[in-house]
This record gives sequence, C-alpha cells and structure tokens, in this order.
Amino acid sequence: MYFTYERPEFDRNDPLEIRRVVGEAYANALEAAKGGRCADYIPELAKADEGEFGICFADMNGERIEFGDVEKRFSIQSISKVINLAACLKFLGFRETFSHVGTEPTGDAFNSILKLDTVSDLPFNPMINAGAIQVASMLSNIMDFDELLGFAREFCMDGDIVLNEKVYASESETGDRNRAIVYLLKSKGVLQGDPDKTLDLYFRMCSLNVNARTLSNMGLMIANNGQNVKTGKHLLHPGYVRTIKSLMFTCGMYDESGEYGVTVGIPSKSGVGGGIVGAVPGRYGIGTYGPSLNKKGNSAGGIAALTHISHLLKLNVFE
Amino acid sequence: MYFTYERPEFDRNDPLEIRRVVGEAYANALEAAKGGRCADYIPELAKADEGEFGICFADMNGERIEFGDVEKRFSIQSISKVINLAACLKFLGFRETFSHVGTEPTGDAFNSILKLDTVSDLPFNPMINAGAIQVASMLSNIMDFDELLGFAREFCMDGDIVLNEKVYASESETGDRNRAIVYLLKSKGVLQGDPDKTLDLYFRMCSLNVNARTLSNMGLMIANNGQNVKTGKHLLHPGYVRTIKSLMFTCGMYDESGEYGVTVGIPSKSGVGGGIVGAVPGRYGIGTYGPSLNKKGNSAGGIAALTHISHLLKLNVFE
Amino acid sequence: MYFTYERPEFDRNDPLEIRRVVGEAYANALEAAKGGRCADYIPELAKADEGEFGICFADMNGERIEFGDVEKRFSIQSISKVINLAACLKFLGFRETFSHVGTEPTGDAFNSILKLDTVSDLPFNPMINAGAIQVASMLSNIMDFDELLGFAREFCMDGDIVLNEKVYASESETGDRNRAIVYLLKSKGVLQGDPDKTLDLYFRMCSLNVNARTLSNMGLMIANNGQNVKTGKHLLHPGYVRTIKSLMFTCGMYDESGEYGVTVGIPSKSGVGGGIVGAVPGRYGIGTYGPSLNKKGNSAGGIAALTHISHLLKLNVFE
Amino acid sequence: MYFTYERPEFDRNDPLEIRRVVGEAYANALEAAKGGRCADYIPELAKADEGEFGICFADMNGERIEFGDVEKRFSIQSISKVINLAACLKFLGFRETFSHVGTEPTGDAFNSILKLDTVSDLPFNPMINAGAIQVASMLSNIMDFDELLGFAREFCMDGDIVLNEKVYASESETGDRNRAIVYLLKSKGVLQGDPDKTLDLYFRMCSLNVNARTLSNMGLMIANNGQNVKTGKHLLHPGYVRTIKSLMFTCGMYDESGEYGVTVGIPSKSGVGGGIVGAVPGRYGIGTYGPSLNKKGNSAGGIAALTHISHLLKLNVFE
Repeated sequence: MYFTYERPEFDRNDPLEIRRVVGEAYANALEAAKGGRCADYIPELAKADEGEFGICFADMNGERIEFGDVEKRFSIQSISKVINLAACLKFLGFRETFSHVGTEPTGDAFNSILKLDTVSDLPFNPMINAGAIQVASMLSNIMDFDELLGFAREFCMDGDIVLNEKVYASESETGDRNRAIVYLLKSKGVLQGDPDKTLDLYFRMCSLNVNARTLSNMGLMIANNGQNVKTGKHLLHPGYVRTIKSLMFTCGMYDESGEYGVTVGIPSKSGVGGGIVGAVPGRYGIGTYGPSLNKKGNSAGGIAALTHISHLLKLNVFE
Repeated sequence: MYFTYERPEFDRNDPLEIRRVVGEAYANALEAAKGGRCADYIPELAKADEGEFGICFADMNGERIEFGDVEKRFSIQSISKVINLAACLKFLGFRETFSHVGTEPTGDAFNSILKLDTVSDLPFNPMINAGAIQVASMLSNIMDFDELLGFAREFCMDGDIVLNEKVYASESETGDRNRAIVYLLKSKGVLQGDPDKTLDLYFRMCSLNVNARTLSNMGLMIANNGQNVKTGKHLLHPGYVRTIKSLMFTCGMYDESGEYGVTVGIPSKSGVGGGIVGAVPGRYGIGTYGPSLNKKGNSAGGIAALTHISHLLKLNVFE
Repeated sequence: MYFTYERPEFDRNDPLEIRRVVGEAYANALEAAKGGRCADYIPELAKADEGEFGICFADMNGERIEFGDVEKRFSIQSISKVINLAACLKFLGFRETFSHVGTEPTGDAFNSILKLDTVSDLPFNPMINAGAIQVASMLSNIMDFDELLGFAREFCMDGDIVLNEKVYASESETGDRNRAIVYLLKSKGVLQGDPDKTLDLYFRMCSLNVNARTLSNMGLMIANNGQNVKTGKHLLHPGYVRTIKSLMFTCGMYDESGEYGVTVGIPSKSGVGGGIVGAVPGRYGIGTYGPSLNKKGNSAGGIAALTHISHLLKLNVFE
Repeated sequence: MYFTYERPEFDRNDPLEIRRVVGEAYANALEAAKGGRCADYIPELAKADEGEFGICFADMNGERIEFGDVEKRFSIQSISKVINLAACLKFLGFRETFSHVGTEPTGDAFNSILKLDTVSDLPFNPMINAGAIQVASMLSNIMDFDELLGFAREFCMDGDIVLNEKVYASESETGDRNRAIVYLLKSKGVLQGDPDKTLDLYFRMCSLNVNARTLSNMGLMIANNGQNVKTGKHLLHPGYVRTIKSLMFTCGMYDESGEYGVTVGIPSKSGVGGGIVGAVPGRYGIGTYGPSLNKKGNSAGGIAALTHISHLLKLNVFE
C-alpha cells in the first residue's frame, strides 16, 4: 500500500507530465516484477518471461502513451470474464443474467468453491471462476465461440485477437478444478448449459491472445460507457457498463479487490496471464502486461504501475 | 434490483425536480418497509415502530429536502464503524490503522467469525464487527468515550448526539457474540487494547442517538472530503476520506454490498438501528431512518429510497 | 437415543429369546419407518415403498432369524464402500490404500467436499463419497467391474448379486456431484485412476442388487474376521477386517456415526437404498432393509431395529 | 501407522511376556519422543522435559508394570474432559447431558469453533474444547471445584491429586480462545452456566496434577465399567461408562482419533500436558506420560507405546 496521500502539484492535463508519470510507473513496474513469479498452474503460462512489462495508457481521443512490451501477445485469462459478462448482459439482459449469478464479493480465492457449497447455490459474482463458468453456460446456449470472439474483437477494438491454441490445449488438459466447478453447478441444478460446451467456451475465451494495447482499448470501451471512441458506435448499453464497472471495482482483482479499491480505485480486472485492464470513467483506458504475479495472483508490475499512475494523476474514483 | 436502466429526462439540478424525486423515494420507502421487520437481537431495537421512515437529503450548500421522521432519534449501531474508522485514521494514521485490520470485503454476514478463524488472523475490514472491534481496541488506547463522542459530534455536525443509555445497557447485556470476537482476537495476539475497555467503547459508540438529519450531515462531511460544508474547517484529510468512501462502497452494506454497489452505487453504511448514511462525492449527503430491515439486515425503506434517488438523479458513482 | 441403560434379565443365548427380541425390533422398525422418507436424489430410489422392512439376523453357524422383506432386492448404495475398501486392502495392501485416503471421521455430510478443499487434499476416510471414489480410482487400475463383482459375491456369500441397470443408469445420469468430486481429486493430483473409469466403477458398485439376507452374510464375513463361516475359506486377512470394523464404527453411519456408536455400538454401514449391515464381532451378522430414511440419510427402521437388538442382547462392543 | 498385521506367537497372558512387551513399548516411546515437541501455548507446559517418559500398565487385580517417570506429576489437561463427562453423566444423567452437547466426531482441531458457528449451535462432542466447556457449564450449577476434585480423586483412585496452581494461573491468563468459546456458546443461548464460573471450573480441572499411575487407575476404572477394582465400589453406572468408552474411541485423540482407532483401537484420551489414558475393556488400564507431542497434539511417546502394546498383545477392541 501507499502510506501517504501527499502528492506534488503539477498540471495533470499536460501530456508531457502524464507521459512522465506513466514512464515512472513503467520503471516502478519493472522493479516490482522482480518480487513476483509467473503462474505455473498451466505449463504454457510458466514459460513467460518474468522480466517483461508493457503499459499502454490511452485517452478518449485515442492518443496513446506506451512503454515496454505493448505488442507482446499473451493469454487474456480471467480478463475474459469481463467480456463474457458484457456479452451476457447485451444478449440476455440484466434480469436474466443476474437470475443465475450474484453480485457479491467473496473474500475468497478466485477458484474457491467454499461459498458455493455452504452459503449459496448461485455463484457469488461473475468475476470468480464459478460465476464466470455460469455466465459461459448462459452464452453457450445462444452463441458459438466464433460469434463470441467477434464480440470480443469489437469490445476490445482489436480485430487481431485470435485463439492461442497452445494455451487452449493446456487449459483443457489441466482444467480439472473448473470441471469440478461445472459439475458442482450442474448438481445444484443451476448450470444453464451443457457442461462440456460450457467449459469449452470458457477455456477458449481464457485463451484469447491479447496485448497491453488491446487491454487499453477494452478499458476505453468501458470508460466510454460502451461506445467506441473512434467510430462512435454504441456497442453496449451504458447501464450495463455501469454494472460492469461496479463489479470490476468490488470483485475485479481477486481477493485483493478491497485493497486495490483503496490504493488504486480504478475499476480493473486482472488475469493470471499477466494482464490488467483499467477503466478510468470518462477519461482513460489502461492496459498493462507483466506476467510476474504477486501472491494474490495479480500482476506485480501492473499493480505497481496502476498504483503510481492513480496516485499521481488522482484517478481514484473516490478522489 | 432495478431491472431497467431507462429513465425519463428532466433537469436533474432543478430543486423542484429533486424534491419530487425524494418525495417519491419516501413513498417507495414506506411501501418497502412493510416487507421487512425490526431487528430483535437487542430488546431495545425490537421496540421500534416498523412503519416509521424519514429521509434527509442535503446538498453542499446545506440545503435540505426532508420527508417523514427526520428528527426521531435512534441508535446509530454499525454506522458508528465509519466514525471509529475516521477517528482511527485521523489520530493513528493510515499505516498504523491498516497494520491491524484489512480492507477486503468478506461476502459473509456482519458478525461472522469464519474467515477470522480460517483465512486470516486479522479481521477482513473495519465495516464488519470483528474489524470494528479491532479499530475500537486501537482507539481505546488513545482516547476515552467522551473524546470520541466529541469527534463524532464534529464529524456528524451534530452537537446533540448523546449516548442512549437503554440501548447501551441492552448492548452490554446481550453482546456475547462480540465478547467472543474480542477474545478470539486477543487469543490470536492481534487485539490492540484491553478487552473490556475495547468492548465498552465499541458498545457505547453503537449506542449513539442520531437521526436522519445527523446522518445526512455525516454524508455531507464524507461527500465534501472531510471538510465542514458550513465552517470550511478541515476535520479529516481528504486521503483518509477517500479510503473511507472506498470501504463504504465495497463493504458498507453487509453482505448486500455488491448488489447495492450495482443498483445504488453510492458509498453508504447501514446500521441495524434502521439508519443508512450515503455520501454522493462532491454533491450530496443523504440520511435515512427506517427500522424495518430486510433479510440482509439493511433498512428496507432506506434501500428502496436510495435506489430510487440514485436511479432517477443518476448518482451512481459509475454512471 | 435410548435414555436408559436398564434391561430385563433373560438368557441372551436362548434362540427363542433372541427370536423374540428380533421380532420386537421388527415391530419397532415398522413404526419408526413412518417417521422417515425415501431418498429422492435418484429417481429410482424415490420409487421404493416406505412401508417395507426386512431384517435378517444370522449367527456364526449360519442360523438365521428373519422377519419381513428379506428377499426384496434393492441397491446397495454406500454399503458398497465397505466392499470396495475390502478389495482395495486385499489386492493393494494397507500401506498403498492408506497412502491415498485417510482414516478420520469428518462430522460432515457424506457428500461434503468442504474438508477436501480446506483441510486436506486427501479424502478424510473411505466411507464418505470422496474417499470411496478415491478407493474406486485405485481399484480401476487393477480390475474391471466383473472382477470386482466376483469379489463382492464372495464377500457377501451371495452369487445372485447383479447390477441393477436402472439404478446404474439413474446414478450415471444424476451423479454430477460425484463427477465434481472426481475432478476435484484429479485437480489436486491425488486421484489414482481415469475419472470416467473411476466413476463408472463407483456407480456400478453403488448399483448392486442385494437384500437383507445378503447384508447379513456380509456382516457375518466381517464378524468372522474375513473367513467364510460355511466353507472356512479365508477371503480377507483378519487385520484388514479389523481396520474395516474400526472405520465402520467411527465413520460408517454418515454424520450420525458418533451417536450410533453410543446407542448401538456395532460396526455398521448404511446406504441410502435403505440397507444397513451390522457386524457383531465373533457373534452375529445383521442385515436390514427399510428405504424410509431419517434426516441423516440412514434407514429409520434399520436404526430402530439395531438399537433395540443391541440394547436388549447387549451387543454394544463397549458393553 | 503400523503397516503389518503379522505378529509373533507367544503366551499373551504370561506376566513376563507382558513385561517384555511393555518394556519394548517404553524403549519405542523414548525414541519416538525425539520427533515431537512440547506444547507451548501455555508457558508452564513449554517448560517440560521432552525426553521424559513413563508408562504404567495395570491389570484388574491392580498388578502394575511400570517403566520410567511414572510418579512425575504433570497437568491432566484434556484428559479432564473424561472426568467432567463422567461427573455430568453421574449427577445429571444421560438425557440431560446429551441435551446440551452432541456425540459426533468432528474431524476438526480440538479448539475449532468452525462447526459451532456453521453447522450446529450445540458443540459436536464432549471431547473437544467447546463441548467440554459446555459440560463444565452444567457442572458449575450443581457443584463447586472441591466437590468435582473429590469425584476426580475417586474416579482416578488417587487421593493425591491437587490443583497445579502455576498451570491454573497460566491457563487463566492465556485462555482467551476458551473465553471466546464460552461467549459464543452464551450468544447462541446454549451455555448452561455463568461464563466466568464455567471457565474457572474448566481451567481448574485442566490443571489437576496427575501422573502415569493416576491415569492407569483411571483407565482401570473405565475398563472395569465404573467399579473400583480394589474396593468393589460402584462409582459410575456401567451404561455411562459404555458411553464414555464409545466417545473416547471416536473422539478421544483429537483429529487423530480415526487413525488411532485403526492402529491402536483402545478407548483412550490424551492431553497436551503429555498424558494418555487407555482403557482395555475388562482387562487393563494404561497410563502414559510423555510431554513431547506430535503434530496432532498427542504424546508422541504415548502413541508409540500404546501402538506397540496393542499390536503385540492384541488389545484392539476389533481384534
């Protein structure tokens, strides 16, 4: 945590000052990455280079400030939960979506099944595995992967997103805990789709190849309430995006969400592939890539960078 | 939940329109209150009139819109957790405070000790009983009740706050679960103060007599980043208030916080005495009183009123 | 519970007296069955007649006292866990078996996965689903169903045991919770066999058609330390049977095992198909069938009958 | 665990052979003690000498075989739970006792409050702290410590048992977790006595000074169904003793009870002071003292000695 609230005064709208701050954030991230390590629960993830880091900071005009490995593709992992939720809200609506998954933070690990088996038959929220699998089960009934991929490309303003076949194969082979979750949901009578189709869709979406720039675009889409900043096209109803931002704020950073809300305060979502997407409402989209993770499973460099930027540029939604 | 995001257009800064909306919210609250019931774990609380409701909606100029029982005094209960946290931050600082209590939402009931005994020795956050008792233990070392009452009066801009002796006696007599919590914390070696002094301070603070107007003032203080809207005096560093708003958002409404964040989206805190305080950053302070509680322990009328107001006036922080 | 320890004096070795006691037990069971209800988690089980009850009480000479529906076939369900454990011990040995499953009672429901996900990666004991699935995974590597069925027929001295195809189909279709368990075990790296083969073997063994007489034979086999009372053939090492008796005593009656140990005190195992097998060391084998279950999932009539018999004939191992 | 069931043949009733076996057990215990460590949650316990070990093996004629530190006094700790339960059964009866405490093993640690707060308002059994405190609350209403001490002396056939004042002071000072438990029970409305009186009685009983010989006497009392082997006096109804043996078997060795049942199979109770009492029904009373504990909190030497003796002399109740 940052143990001070004091900050130097400067013009926070001056592009040069912003560039300076993002550059400092990049340097901080490289340093912080040394303290973490790559995810190893999937062989493909363990191969990442812990020293890599990239940040893309984009404003509503589409202007970008970039440092480091911003074009390096990596698997989106849990960040796809946001895309899945967005698609579910768009195509099935608020009422249907939240009839099958809750909106409460859990305080438990991302893959926990504790509450699912003791407190509630419905998964607590769409940002944990159980909830995201539930969302995937709903989507599996109305669209196939290609259609959802099409939506993801639009949502992230990135037509180059493709499936990372190696990661997908790795996910399918090692996804036994998620298999356990899907059958637990089915045994409780809440799963909405076929277990195999659901898992396949879920694993594929986790295996999308994105980069920091993709994530900054996704952040912009959310920051701009579902409207493409370039074309002006409305992809998602602002009300749905409002809900997404709220859930990213309360549940987006695994069991570090509360602390992140205090120190960073930007609706964000992380993935164990090393990505973080941040959406500063009405202002910025931020994407970071740093595969070295902290103990909570969040990118060590990404957290360091976003903390610095939020602190210096006063981007906390509760400033 | 509200299952629509569509809203009529009107001038949301027009005082008459605002008054109309608050009036509708009041009517909704009276209706919603019929579906809940008073807290009964303390005899004093069970005596409340379930039909009562009051709302005070105040802007940064101190202008108020009020309906119903806004002068009726009731016990502040869990809302005192915000005052205690504010005092702890002011007098002991961020680092010391959060060395002894976490910042994560739990997804568990307000009085749960599950995580305390399985996941972490430190209470998850200052908005649940265990965390608030921990905060009280820190305060018990540096101030007595009279001093903390003085701070509460300033923080709520209400010099008439006094201890409700009956509620205090009732709390002390029936507070065995909180006694269990204080000794559990002590057994883990994390409690910072004497168990008896800690509990006495905690019970006293829960027993403060406030009304809806008091709570709207408290909301204003938070909405205005710790500065008294009337005198301009800075009571609390804006950074501390930022932290308080974030924790109110993620943890303020018991295990309904996530849903409330989605449907209302205003940093708020509720108490089983029937009060809710809401702080719309930079704009409004809202206080409601309605002792009829829903199943999560939040004021049924208060939730209904705040949902309506937030929806119509677009006060969700993620609009 | 029986709230008295006082019993009339009579000759407890007199066959007529024993017949009288067993007859009373049968009458008690019919009465007790009215207070329970059939299992309904599998459609096939829900079709059973709640009024049915049968008891077969056999001594070491093979003499039988029988009342009621002793030839009615029903599915063995969880009682197969004992057969599986016996086969695992016989063919893989004590050390190998208990390298992959524990020996502790859990106090949780039979299908609980709580401890599996919080306390230990190994299932607590072979009498709960998770542990029995683990045992089945070991067996699936060394024998097919036909071989295991052959062992079951020998162990129960009943060559007529066959697979109940309807129950097996029903189990497979509705066994999602067990599917969740098998994948949870696999995700933890402890499962010993292929998930599908494991589950298929497990489901088939749960679907064996037995009757009260079969179970009394099985009880005799255990009571006689693994030696066939008729042929004198040693099927299982007495040491393995000792272990089985101990686990039946501490874990055999779901989360009613402790109470059953106090009031009945006979190593026993129940199944949701309505069966209970009891083994009075060195003396008797008891089989009961009564599909009306109490809240813990144990046969209401079976518990009543065994309580009466144990009490009157002083068969509690701690008399 | 012992991974073999094979044993040499010899005359198991020959006093010389028995002495040889007990002597081997003593040697094994000294070795095993090196792998454990003393309890340290109470300062007084941490002062014990980890190398000490004593065993007293007594038959129904009062003949004793003793090795090592059999006269060394140490605090009885959890073994007092058996005495308390015995007194509760004697003076309040079976029905009253088990209206306020259960009979199920938990699989949780001895001081766990997990199930108490999630599964049941009543403590699971009288052998864990919560259940023993509940028993103490019942006793606190009908007798004072001096009277209960008198009963303990009779039950253990040892008039020299006194309160270890240092341990008692230590318990009281550091017993915050037990304080938490007593208030949790009170908050649930199940505690039967005054919290302070209850805890004081509980702490005092944990602080009784006994030695291995005392425990062997206590074992004899239980093995002889509540009748003093010397005077012939009936202290406790055999039915109550039967219940005690059953609960010792299923719950007596903390969360190692199931494994101990398999490998040793003698109704026993351990304490973190280093003692173990074993009761071989109708045959022997065994007391051991070895303060070096294994990871489950049971005396490492005591477990080793009892395993050896039970194995060689075939004392497992399920032999």
